[in-house]
Amino acid sequence: MSVAGSPLPVAIEPERDPHLVAAVEEAGGIVVPLDRARVLVWIGDPAEFPDLADTVEWVALKTAGIEGFRAAGVIDGNRIWTNASGFYAAGCAEHALALLLAGLRQIDTSVVLGWNDDVIPPAVRTLRGATVTIIGAGGIGRELTPRLSACGAWVVAVNRSGTPVEGAVRTATPDQLDEVLAETDHVVLAAPATAETRHLIDDRTLALLKPHSWVVNVARGALIDQAALGRALRDGVIAGAALDVTDPEPPASDDPLWECPNLIVTPHIANPAPGLTREMAPWLAENIRRFTAGEKLISVVDPAAEY
Amino acid sequence: MSVAGSPLPVAIEPERDPHLVAAVEEAGGIVVPLDRARVLVWIGDPAEFPDLADTVEWVALKTAGIEGFRAAGVIDGNRIWTNASGFYAAGCAEHALALLLAGLRQIDTSVVLGWNDDVIPPAVRTLRGATVTIIGAGGIGRELTPRLSACGAWVVAVNRSGTPVEGAVRTATPDQLDEVLAETDHVVLAAPATAETRHLIDDRTLALLKPHSWVVNVARGALIDQAALGRALRDGVIAGAALDVTDPEPPASDDPLWECPNLIVTPHIANPAPGLTREMAPWLAENIRRFTAGEKLISVVDPAAEY
Repeated sequence: MSVAGSPLPVAIEPERDPHLVAAVEEAGGIVVPLDRARVLVWIGDPAEFPDLADTVEWVALKTAGIEGFRAAGVIDGNRIWTNASGFYAAGCAEHALALLLAGLRQIDTSVVLGWNDDVIPPAVRTLRGATVTIIGAGGIGRELTPRLSACGAWVVAVNRSGTPVEGAVRTATPDQLDEVLAETDHVVLAAPATAETRHLIDDRTLALLKPHSWVVNVARGALIDQAALGRALRDGVIAGAALDVTDPEPPASDDPLWECPNLIVTPHIANPAPGLTREMAPWLAENIRRFTAGEKLISVVDPAAEY
Repeated sequence: MSVAGSPLPVAIEPERDPHLVAAVEEAGGIVVPLDRARVLVWIGDPAEFPDLADTVEWVALKTAGIEGFRAAGVIDGNRIWTNASGFYAAGCAEHALALLLAGLRQIDTSVVLGWNDDVIPPAVRTLRGATVTIIGAGGIGRELTPRLSACGAWVVAVNRSGTPVEGAVRTATPDQLDEVLAETDHVVLAAPATAETRHLIDDRTLALLKPHSWVVNVARGALIDQAALGRALRDGVIAGAALDVTDPEPPASDDPLWECPNLIVTPHIANPAPGLTREMAPWLAENIRRFTAGEKLISVVDPAAEY
């Protein structure tokens, strides 16, 4: 049933995913073809995005980073756009913790070398007492901070607004980044891909880190200058890097990335595709409830901003 | 200076580790040869353990599990014995979390296969909403529970006394183990090696688990029947196992363990040897302070019990 008046007509395209259909109906909406919809839930690629009539008031995208939709020129100022950064946050935070711990605990080395305690023990490190800087601390940062804190780490958050992240010992702004990096043990990248964040990790910023530092990326590959990362890993400028995202994706089989020592790569699985629409469903239901009630939506995209 | 009267004479053998010497002196003790000592801090192996005069009132061992010292017959009822389970707990808990997350997040598979998102995503799993049972929930359990809870997992603790573990949704006793295993998603072993816990994980208990279950062992290798584990992994009875301890250690190069699918092995590095005496130092200082003040020591071993 609709919260007020007739049920909200929602299109789910390019296919009617059953988890999302259930979410729409639970929230008092009705699933309809696109030409009768006031809302479009788009779970397809940017290249296939349809032309929209002005009667579509809100488009809900399923991705957290929407640079692909921006590049395709589909995001306009004629309606509300939401991305899905909210419901990705917990999964990305868990994956970031898994990658950082795998690096510190040398699980990758153990998998490759077997029982080799001559090589492995000296470099095993701990999160206890370590400082971990989260760059781009929004939703993922809010989820990751309590996980890191429970492991005894000190969290420093960096975000554009300087909005304090609960549990972080410090929240800094991007202009303080150099000073923050010089004092951190490890770095987790959780920022959107914009012109400003492109190659944020490069030769210069890597040189600010420590020989025992790990760099973890669960955001977008373009945040790291991969050639610079390769140099830093080969020269021992940092201890290692763990990436769930690369530039490009997937890396070619002859990408120099595969030759880097102390590099862990997972294939963009922080939020696995099979569980995606199931996890997205409660989040969509909440936004449909809010839209119907005339409330502010979660994760509204600013068409003028880059994320 | 001594807390009361003349400084407590402490021997540190077989070598005078500087971290432990500093800890003894900080706590008001003085480091002396064994034949003048009232306390022996033993950081060597059981096989080299010296004959003791009755003037040695307390022996502090550096290991958490002391089955090696029991087997060597050195533990007697003539003095106080302490083990070091206390200061290992946080490191073991962190390693257990790292191993469990590495398994759920398929980091081992990614390290071996590279970018293979056809194989990897469907099985990626999360701690959020998962039930994790800690078997032998003492010090490690107390450290691991808040780490797992911060990741959104529900913790069930199992220990001999049924002493509730803070943050666990349930604390059960060993007689309830079957019922607990039938309802859990994952298992972490943190129990001492005793006759009772030997092969606690065998064909029968593995069959109680789920096809998506991971088993993590940061305690002692003997808790698992490794042949049964191999069968369970090959037959898909459980999803995987991550072991920091094996039986024997190290496994022979032709041990069938190395052929098991979905098995992560790290070489007993939950608490790395290089940082060991540094981490042990504050704990030893506290026990020396207590001994001098006539207070109850931390981690006293019951000579009649098996741990």
